[in-house]
Amino acid sequence: MKTPVGFVGVSSGACVRPVVRSAQGPSQNGAVRVGVAAGRTCRKAAVRDLAMTTSSPASSAGKHADAQPDASKKSAAFFSNHTYLAPHEVPELLASGSEDAQSMRVRFERMIRTAQDEICAAIEKLDGKAKFRQDAWSRSGGGGGIARVLTDGAVFEKAGVNVSVVYGVMPPEAIKAATERGVARDAGFKEGEPVPYFACGISSVMHPRNPMAPTVHFNYRYFETDGGVWWFGGGTDLTPSYLFEDDIKHFHGTYKKVCDKHDPELFPKFKAWCDRYFTITHRGEMRGMGGIFFDDFNDRSPEQHLAFSTDACNAFLDAYVPIVQRRKDLEYSPKQKEWQQIRRGRYVEFNLVYDRGTIFGLKTGGRIESILMSLPETARWEYDHHPEEGSWEAKTLECMKNPVDWV
Amino acid sequence: MKTPVGFVGVSSGACVRPVVRSAQGPSQNGAVRVGVAAGRTCRKAAVRDLAMTTSSPASSAGKHADAQPDASKKSAAFFSNHTYLAPHEVPELLASGSEDAQSMRVRFERMIRTAQDEICAAIEKLDGKAKFRQDAWSRSGGGGGIARVLTDGAVFEKAGVNVSVVYGVMPPEAIKAATERGVARDAGFKEGEPVPYFACGISSVMHPRNPMAPTVHFNYRYFETDGGVWWFGGGTDLTPSYLFEDDIKHFHGTYKKVCDKHDPELFPKFKAWCDRYFTITHRGEMRGMGGIFFDDFNDRSPEQHLAFSTDACNAFLDAYVPIVQRRKDLEYSPKQKEWQQIRRGRYVEFNLVYDRGTIFGLKTGGRIESILMSLPETARWEYDHHPEEGSWEAKTLECMKNPVDWV
Repeated sequence: MKTPVGFVGVSSGACVRPVVRSAQGPSQNGAVRVGVAAGRTCRKAAVRDLAMTTSSPASSAGKHADAQPDASKKSAAFFSNHTYLAPHEVPELLASGSEDAQSMRVRFERMIRTAQDEICAAIEKLDGKAKFRQDAWSRSGGGGGIARVLTDGAVFEKAGVNVSVVYGVMPPEAIKAATERGVARDAGFKEGEPVPYFACGISSVMHPRNPMAPTVHFNYRYFETDGGVWWFGGGTDLTPSYLFEDDIKHFHGTYKKVCDKHDPELFPKFKAWCDRYFTITHRGEMRGMGGIFFDDFNDRSPEQHLAFSTDACNAFLDAYVPIVQRRKDLEYSPKQKEWQQIRRGRYVEFNLVYDRGTIFGLKTGGRIESILMSLPETARWEYDHHPEEGSWEAKTLECMKNPVDWV
Repeated sequence: MKTPVGFVGVSSGACVRPVVRSAQGPSQNGAVRVGVAAGRTCRKAAVRDLAMTTSSPASSAGKHADAQPDASKKSAAFFSNHTYLAPHEVPELLASGSEDAQSMRVRFERMIRTAQDEICAAIEKLDGKAKFRQDAWSRSGGGGGIARVLTDGAVFEKAGVNVSVVYGVMPPEAIKAATERGVARDAGFKEGEPVPYFACGISSVMHPRNPMAPTVHFNYRYFETDGGVWWFGGGTDLTPSYLFEDDIKHFHGTYKKVCDKHDPELFPKFKAWCDRYFTITHRGEMRGMGGIFFDDFNDRSPEQHLAFSTDACNAFLDAYVPIVQRRKDLEYSPKQKEWQQIRRGRYVEFNLVYDRGTIFGLKTGGRIESILMSLPETARWEYDHHPEEGSWEAKTLECMKNPVDWV
């Protein structure tokens, strides 16, 4: 039973909040267990991953005008009319029921849906206490999303693994962004003409409790327009509060192996891109210690791209789980927890000030809770804080100020 | 002794951090006591208040490109070459030594410098434990700043009162922003021609520890160009976590009285402007419960404007201190502290995603620590959090979703 309804709005006032939220018991067969909010009302349900695929600059979203509800509402229209789905309503394919099973759309969705299941199951096992809650929705414009978020875990304060599929007409912001990035995403269409597109992605952030265990983020996405333009994007990056060289080498080494399998030129390129992208420019430091990042990637056969995205996405558990396993139970001091909180403040700064996906999502009526699942549970800002010279904290920070070639 | 030196950079790597930071003892006569970092090195020392005067949109600062160090560096050039000042080096006038004592520049600076002294003294007294630390600097391009920040207080987790004076050539971003806002700030100059300007402002944020005591923010600023364009801007707004109607009525009532003294049309206009400006668009809610906000204000004599800004700025202690006095010692539960932390997360969202001054400052090489003094010490994000229906939290939130006419 689907329940489309009225919505919370910028100016509509009253908070229409979910009224049904049943956490289901453990599922069979070790599969991910989900708590599902069914029959809910939501105007803003939408899609972080579209944001990540379209990568629009804030410039297009009127960031600085005095609270522009009109502009915002206009954009939000692309995303409105979502319906929360009960567990049995979640379709096998969000893409649609009538796709060619061999199309890239379908194959990419299957890949990320499988990855979502496997990763959530492994992370629940690693956590040992908390379970992922699922919020799934369909989007009247086309597509839908499945957000899975674990909170209050033994190992993880917060972990989210979201999948989304969006299709429809490309927002003008996205087209503008494309132009600015030098990619002709509206190829095949006249200027101003609506560009039908399809976007599909998986996005994840995990914040462990122990300051010795690093935060991680990954995102893999596929985008195509009806004009025949298509590309892949994605990456996985690590954000430790405390430097353990072995961890970083293992993490980078895992992705180097994945990249090298496909093309030895990829890793150096994507590693440097990651360092650039995740820079907190106003701090002169990176958010963390990098990994790989790529976008507008379409210089080989679609088959080769899908194979690379699949391998990179599937490398996540190997790259991350062993690190958490050896750090999650280490002892730490209140001062070390505080440093983690300060680093999480920087994480928030990056995500809210620079991250294209986050800002585009916020400005275009994306599902706020899916977008901001990336933020840590808690963060801290101290005036003019500097770690003590020669300290572990200072050495860690130094690696974020001057990116290191770890492998 | 002034010490101009090399600096921390986006790509320069090593963290050059202040090495001298002496907290001075209590000053005489109840005046503000300051801890001063002298002889420090800082490339990024700059000016939140310029940001607040120029109000540039992110569009001009390349928000979303893959970490644009070049663009950022270019803007930062307007602000580079700052020198930290020892207490005895802080000039009586930041504006310059040769100003006409009756000029608006001098009179406005004197007004905000006096306000800074008085407000800091009163807040120290109210806190009873912590003292303001002062960081002062001069700017080779013209002007300087005095940041005063109190942390780890008995009443306040963090409170900052910053003054800055900047003059030089108006950054292209600011001119672009002006154009977009429909104000011809480059009047008298040809397109692209450098526009000499002067900007001066006071900016403050105070975050009390007790969730029953509201956060407050104010900013008053004056701007002029050599082309004869000038205007005033400013405002004061309150951000409670828990609604006490009497507090909000007292706060709004205080500013209504100030406004009405000058012109009965001002309060309704500036109150509505405040509600609009401090909207977290993606949440469909305001940051807090408003107050007054105005910008590009120049429709009467400079004398009248100065008088209004002075009265509004000086009303701060009357508007805020009594509220904190009656709330600072109230008992509260861990759950209530948590709700405060969630509201502080929203405060961070507003400041990093929407606040013009913050973003302009971050993007143009402003002094990061002065700009981000506005962030709370700690904040919290919970996935899909909604206060219980009918609860105090829900009632409070309702007032931020649907602005109320309090007086």
